[in-house]
Amino acid sequence: MSSATRAGEPTDEAPDAAKRRGRRPAGEDRRGDILAAARVEFGARGFDATTIRGVARAAGVDPRLVHHYFDGKDALFVAAFELPARPQQLIDGVLAPGVDGVGDRLVRLFTTVWDSDEGRQRIVALVSAASASEAGARMLREFLTREVFARIVARVGSDDAELRAALAASQMMGLALARYVVRMEPLAAAEPDVVVALVGPTIQRYLTGPLPAS
Amino acid sequence: MSSATRAGEPTDEAPDAAKRRGRRPAGEDRRGDILAAARVEFGARGFDATTIRGVARAAGVDPRLVHHYFDGKDALFVAAFELPARPQQLIDGVLAPGVDGVGDRLVRLFTTVWDSDEGRQRIVALVSAASASEAGARMLREFLTREVFARIVARVGSDDAELRAALAASQMMGLALARYVVRMEPLAAAEPDVVVALVGPTIQRYLTGPLPAS
Repeated sequence: MSSATRAGEPTDEAPDAAKRRGRRPAGEDRRGDILAAARVEFGARGFDATTIRGVARAAGVDPRLVHHYFDGKDALFVAAFELPARPQQLIDGVLAPGVDGVGDRLVRLFTTVWDSDEGRQRIVALVSAASASEAGARMLREFLTREVFARIVARVGSDDAELRAALAASQMMGLALARYVVRMEPLAAAEPDVVVALVGPTIQRYLTGPLPAS
Repeated sequence: MSSATRAGEPTDEAPDAAKRRGRRPAGEDRRGDILAAARVEFGARGFDATTIRGVARAAGVDPRLVHHYFDGKDALFVAAFELPARPQQLIDGVLAPGVDGVGDRLVRLFTTVWDSDEGRQRIVALVSAASASEAGARMLREFLTREVFARIVARVGSDDAELRAALAASQMMGLALARYVVRMEPLAAAEPDVVVALVGPTIQRYLTGPLPAS
């Protein structure tokens, strides 16, 4: 853990260097070790309390190797749970044209991302982790709050923004549960365009429509 | 399994009779054995394929003892997962006044039933079972379809009734996930009246409002 490193590529831990020196079995996968350690750390500590340093320690690697592979904690989370993209990029794209039509665009993004067999497995894994333990619930809550809904809240910019984001989250998570986990028909087999037309107006109302005074 | 029985109370298996003969330890809990077997059977086979007879076999008791304790398969499911009431009774009450205001009444019923610590544990257990395995997902899907939404569909009575029920299910399950499992604020701490005012209109639109042609 203390060897000299080149910027961005610690030679002690990089797979090529390790193979070259013959210190690791050919099949060794340091990136895989880091991802496995990250799943354990995120699951045990939640998103906020997990650190790159802690994941590195759990994986038995130098923190610089984690930074070499993953550009930040959110990228590490996305890779650990095999999410299809960093939410920052997806959400910014959905919000860029403004709040008009944002409900339809969010539902379309969501169904596009999760409609594959692989996407379905990922969302089942996240729901399973969230319901299996308090730490798993905290992990998903903190990740959604920091990395997904904080961005939406900032764009919507009303006093009710956090409540609006939580309401939108409830419908999006419920759509995921009904369509991909429990698979209730005819919603599970409906074409993405149909789902957008059905659920988009709900998201739009939650984010920008009139809400009752609370 | 073959002894003479009185109607509704099989002497071979009833706890009093067992204790009287001294064949069972004092702490033996035949009802608990049946519930444990039911959880395994429902989880492995789903709701539709589970039978009273199969649960009795798995619990090592006479099927008549299961019937003695539980008035039907839905009652056995409700007891096995410690749900607060049989959905038939709850749903019929919500639907009795007609479809006007049914969205608000469903959300109010839901938050009333699940807002306790115990209620929260039950819904977490159901979501956990549904996301842990395909059989668990099938169990929840079949139970919701047969025992909850078939009744709503029958009352709403439109061509789109199954789609409407699935959409309402998506928002109700998502509310459960956001409020009780992931616990996103400020939705998790909101008063029931506030949740009804926020989410009731969504359920009402899904059940009785105009939907886009699909």
